[in-house]
Amino acid sequence: MNESSLLLTIAVLGGTGKEGKGLVYRWAKAGYHIHIGSRDANKAQSTANEIMSMLDGDGAVEGLSNLEAAQQADIVVLTVPYAAHRFTLESVKDALKGKVLIDVTVPLVPPKVATVQMPAAGSAAQEAKEILGADAQVCAAFQNISHEHLLDDSEVECDVLVTGTSKEARAETLKLVEAAGLIGWDAGPLENSVVVEGLTSVLIGINKKYGSTHAGIKITGVEK
Amino acid sequence: MNESSLLLTIAVLGGTGKEGKGLVYRWAKAGYHIHIGSRDANKAQSTANEIMSMLDGDGAVEGLSNLEAAQQADIVVLTVPYAAHRFTLESVKDALKGKVLIDVTVPLVPPKVATVQMPAAGSAAQEAKEILGADAQVCAAFQNISHEHLLDDSEVECDVLVTGTSKEARAETLKLVEAAGLIGWDAGPLENSVVVEGLTSVLIGINKKYGSTHAGIKITGVEK
Repeated sequence: MNESSLLLTIAVLGGTGKEGKGLVYRWAKAGYHIHIGSRDANKAQSTANEIMSMLDGDGAVEGLSNLEAAQQADIVVLTVPYAAHRFTLESVKDALKGKVLIDVTVPLVPPKVATVQMPAAGSAAQEAKEILGADAQVCAAFQNISHEHLLDDSEVECDVLVTGTSKEARAETLKLVEAAGLIGWDAGPLENSVVVEGLTSVLIGINKKYGSTHAGIKITGVEK
Repeated sequence: MNESSLLLTIAVLGGTGKEGKGLVYRWAKAGYHIHIGSRDANKAQSTANEIMSMLDGDGAVEGLSNLEAAQQADIVVLTVPYAAHRFTLESVKDALKGKVLIDVTVPLVPPKVATVQMPAAGSAAQEAKEILGADAQVCAAFQNISHEHLLDDSEVECDVLVTGTSKEARAETLKLVEAAGLIGWDAGPLENSVVVEGLTSVLIGINKKYGSTHAGIKITGVEK
């Protein structure tokens, strides 16, 4: 926990889901103020209470509607299922102006979730950028992390590839990756998000084929 | 070296390039018969001589034109630069009937080689499938392996993700991955090749950003 992180408030829209909840837990533990957003503010508050109890009260997590959560945050993380992606973004669009959006969405198309099927924009994150407009700062990250190990304190054996619209936005996102106890890499411009989102389908297929539940990836051959 | 591998002949089209040459060396050493293909059969034979000399004569490598190499092979590997992808495939199309094509091509678009820029078909491998027709068996593999360590006998710290049009074609390709001393994974249908081809741009960017020359990936969290 350091002073600069204490000054930042992170909104996690869809933060009542498994992935969002795991990220909330990790960031709250690192000292960030968290707004859990949900369509249902009561549900968000109930998840906030749950996380606060896991932290023995030592944290700052509250539950709000998605819009309120986004309005009062410095940085906004989107962890909704793909079916709610466009609707949620349109509903918070104005609140995102001047803030970095970190899109965690994977555009899975059931039933073939192990087959890469990207939207016309190229990826969910590129679609977010289209919805939010030319000035929007959008990053894509965390798509390959299985939620299982986020809620305990064990090491996550999967690196986080961060793509985004600018080097500065990626650097801001990489700070949150580290704060969550994960290893992150600057994976380049937002066009590269197709690789990271699509990798989730590849990992789902590998899990099924090789009998695992948490296949991941690590970058090799580079010293940081 | 085992008897079944000795029965197979692999054509490596564009096998005079760095990546192709590295694969030829590894497969020849494992006991496969190799046809190196090139637009210039003399150049192919010169590379074949070079590899044979590295193997102290203990191998079966010869140089041919791309068409002859493909005609007389059981399985065909394509390692040409993307600019030669369509032309080379059209020139050997008839010779590929009934054979698995392993496409190693990465559709890089200079100067922005660290930005994912896929062709209209979705990926180079899907483009190959379009060119070759509905019955073609196409796999994509080896795009993320840097050539540097293929020509010596050191361990390559990068896994090979194999996508392809059928489970059987992927299994055949995975045998060649293992024969080259690499670790391979069945990464699903050919639609998923966009991830593996695009990952090369991500790794090029990581190399540049973090000062390496051979960034790679490993699959974690799965026992094989």
